[in-house]
Amino acid sequence: MTTSGIITLTTDFGEIDPYVAMMKGIILSINPAARIVDITHQVPAGSIQKAGSIIKEAYKYFPAGTVHVGVVDPGVGGKRRPITVLAGDHFFVGPDNGLFSPIIETQGHTGIIHLKEKRYWMNKISSTFHGRDIFAPVTAHLSLGVNPFLMGEKIDNPITLVSPLPRKKNSDLVGEVIRVDHFGNLITNFTKEHLSPFLKSKGIIIKIGSLVIKKISTTYNDVPEGQPLALIDSSNLLEIAINMGRATDYLGTECGIGAKVIIRFRNSATN
Amino acid sequence: MTTSGIITLTTDFGEIDPYVAMMKGIILSINPAARIVDITHQVPAGSIQKAGSIIKEAYKYFPAGTVHVGVVDPGVGGKRRPITVLAGDHFFVGPDNGLFSPIIETQGHTGIIHLKEKRYWMNKISSTFHGRDIFAPVTAHLSLGVNPFLMGEKIDNPITLVSPLPRKKNSDLVGEVIRVDHFGNLITNFTKEHLSPFLKSKGIIIKIGSLVIKKISTTYNDVPEGQPLALIDSSNLLEIAINMGRATDYLGTECGIGAKVIIRFRNSATN
Amino acid sequence: MTTSGIITLTTDFGEIDPYVAMMKGIILSINPAARIVDITHQVPAGSIQKAGSIIKEAYKYFPAGTVHVGVVDPGVGGKRRPITVLAGDHFFVGPDNGLFSPIIETQGHTGIIHLKEKRYWMNKISSTFHGRDIFAPVTAHLSLGVNPFLMGEKIDNPITLVSPLPRKKNSDLVGEVIRVDHFGNLITNFTKEHLSPFLKSKGIIIKIGSLVIKKISTTYNDVPEGQPLALIDSSNLLEIAINMGRATDYLGTECGIGAKVIIRFRNSATN
Repeated sequence: MTTSGIITLTTDFGEIDPYVAMMKGIILSINPAARIVDITHQVPAGSIQKAGSIIKEAYKYFPAGTVHVGVVDPGVGGKRRPITVLAGDHFFVGPDNGLFSPIIETQGHTGIIHLKEKRYWMNKISSTFHGRDIFAPVTAHLSLGVNPFLMGEKIDNPITLVSPLPRKKNSDLVGEVIRVDHFGNLITNFTKEHLSPFLKSKGIIIKIGSLVIKKISTTYNDVPEGQPLALIDSSNLLEIAINMGRATDYLGTECGIGAKVIIRFRNSATN
Repeated sequence: MTTSGIITLTTDFGEIDPYVAMMKGIILSINPAARIVDITHQVPAGSIQKAGSIIKEAYKYFPAGTVHVGVVDPGVGGKRRPITVLAGDHFFVGPDNGLFSPIIETQGHTGIIHLKEKRYWMNKISSTFHGRDIFAPVTAHLSLGVNPFLMGEKIDNPITLVSPLPRKKNSDLVGEVIRVDHFGNLITNFTKEHLSPFLKSKGIIIKIGSLVIKKISTTYNDVPEGQPLALIDSSNLLEIAINMGRATDYLGTECGIGAKVIIRFRNSATN
Repeated sequence: MTTSGIITLTTDFGEIDPYVAMMKGIILSINPAARIVDITHQVPAGSIQKAGSIIKEAYKYFPAGTVHVGVVDPGVGGKRRPITVLAGDHFFVGPDNGLFSPIIETQGHTGIIHLKEKRYWMNKISSTFHGRDIFAPVTAHLSLGVNPFLMGEKIDNPITLVSPLPRKKNSDLVGEVIRVDHFGNLITNFTKEHLSPFLKSKGIIIKIGSLVIKKISTTYNDVPEGQPLALIDSSNLLEIAINMGRATDYLGTECGIGAKVIIRFRNSATN
């Protein structure tokens, strides 16, 4: 795999402390030509699953050979292993705590390396900031083209976090809200594939809390302003939204992450 | 117009979701040498006018030939056109919803192109994220030097949003607060040009809410700490501020965006 | 000193206004090859000491010859001098208000230049935004290799802000919280050097508010989840934290910046 020279960063560090900049300084010290792109540093503290799903959504828009670093690392300094995952022609670097499960789940992988070779690390390794001391320098070396298999030992037992998938219950499909975006849209775990047999059917019913939606729209303005709708979003996931409004305001406490979303097909069950 | 290879981004996407990074990934996939600068992603959701005035304030500090992308796009997926505007030796790319009116108003333009050529877009166009599927790739191609007139059809009827301008009322000038900045300063729509005949006059009176200010200061510390002042700010606009303080705290609810600002000249009217 | 071509920015500008982007536009207009890294723009408004300590923590991870700009400048437009400080093989550019005291204190300096040569500035100098009009262009010229001593006059009386240091009180050491990070960790002004004679002793007692901690841990998970601990953090400072939690939540109002932290050695005093 050839490197693209691009590095992305996803962390729960926020933007007030100098932690992200320290990582960038180290990367540029090792590879002055690296181009660094922030995905987000606003992952809720310790939310491995959320960071993993964000990296999974974003990475495929970058050129093959990009190195994606994820640092949501509540077990730092303990026994969890530092790893590099090769998947879908990209590199993923971070803690072995399930962060890259969503990528491995959908893409498979072509190698997972337990990072052990200290010559690719900083000289001194703190017990609280491996993002700076291990992941940043490893990332920079990968972006220079160093063979990832030289950096440690192949493993085949990474920690796995299972993503919640919709399940069948009688004739309903039961899924959930997995992300609430900046616009108050509710992103669910129903994919276009789950729904495509029914997209043109008039018999679909989508329920979340007390709200019932009876069709899949194509754009936000398929419904009047202020009205709720469901559509397949730009990541091919079912999204609940309000035209020119915020679904989180409309639905209130009924709709946070984990809220149940039920799909029923009118001709397949009594309503 | 020669490209500078620099691209700026202004959106209402916030910094939690991966949307901005997706755009950057696409840009770097097409033009690996592009240098991307964020102006802000904190435009209030759907606030076309605010995004437009921010781009207008910032763009002129970039080299000629820079491409400025603006994505505040509540009508995405509907009938609004995607456009490129050529103005003041810069390129502006985004939805045709009035976003670039402030630039066209002050700079004129040398061409507005309705983007139609799909070979400069992503292969699949979602109905909810044209920032990623149309504007990012078009921007990258412009930054590589592709002729903008090859990307669509010239139009001369862009959607126009009129910026609020100060108006005369009897012998007063009545303007308004158009932006509140991070420091709690109130930026008004009075320009240096509106005021320059009176800058040295002792007869000026500026009123906002219950506050009356009787001169135009040169720097914040022309008045004691904690005291209000008015000055011509670094963008040549009249600004209401507090030395070492926040005008928003001082004036409270009287001073949000749209708050009336009255200028009176003492020798031109009874007070 | 050879330039690295890298520039870092630390300000209290926030990320809503176009102020940071204006600085970047100017830098790239003068040095199109500059690589710009944001340290943070979320310094509390006017907090010179906090900005200084952040730059001091971060700068050393960048290559020698990097230019670090700091703009926390409540005295802008008044009599305070614009300066460049040469220290530790890096350049520091900003207002002479004590911002760079933490660096000079620990590193010494090899020259402080009062910036006076207007040919390295913008043509027009506003009285409210020297970050844009003076510091950005000076920085760009430094990153191109211009000799800093050509840009003004050497001075040896910079404004100094003294960092709070732990002091002895009877047989206790009394320090304080100097930073609260994004994870709710409390960073104190005790360095590893203050504590190293006692790190392995069983006799240490650390007090903050009503909390008493009786050892220095190595990692967060040396204690059970939800329990408090003290460790030497990744910047070699004593940190008070909660394993998988937030010290700020645990300690509440007892623990903000400036909160007293007392270290006692059990064998040196009655408890």
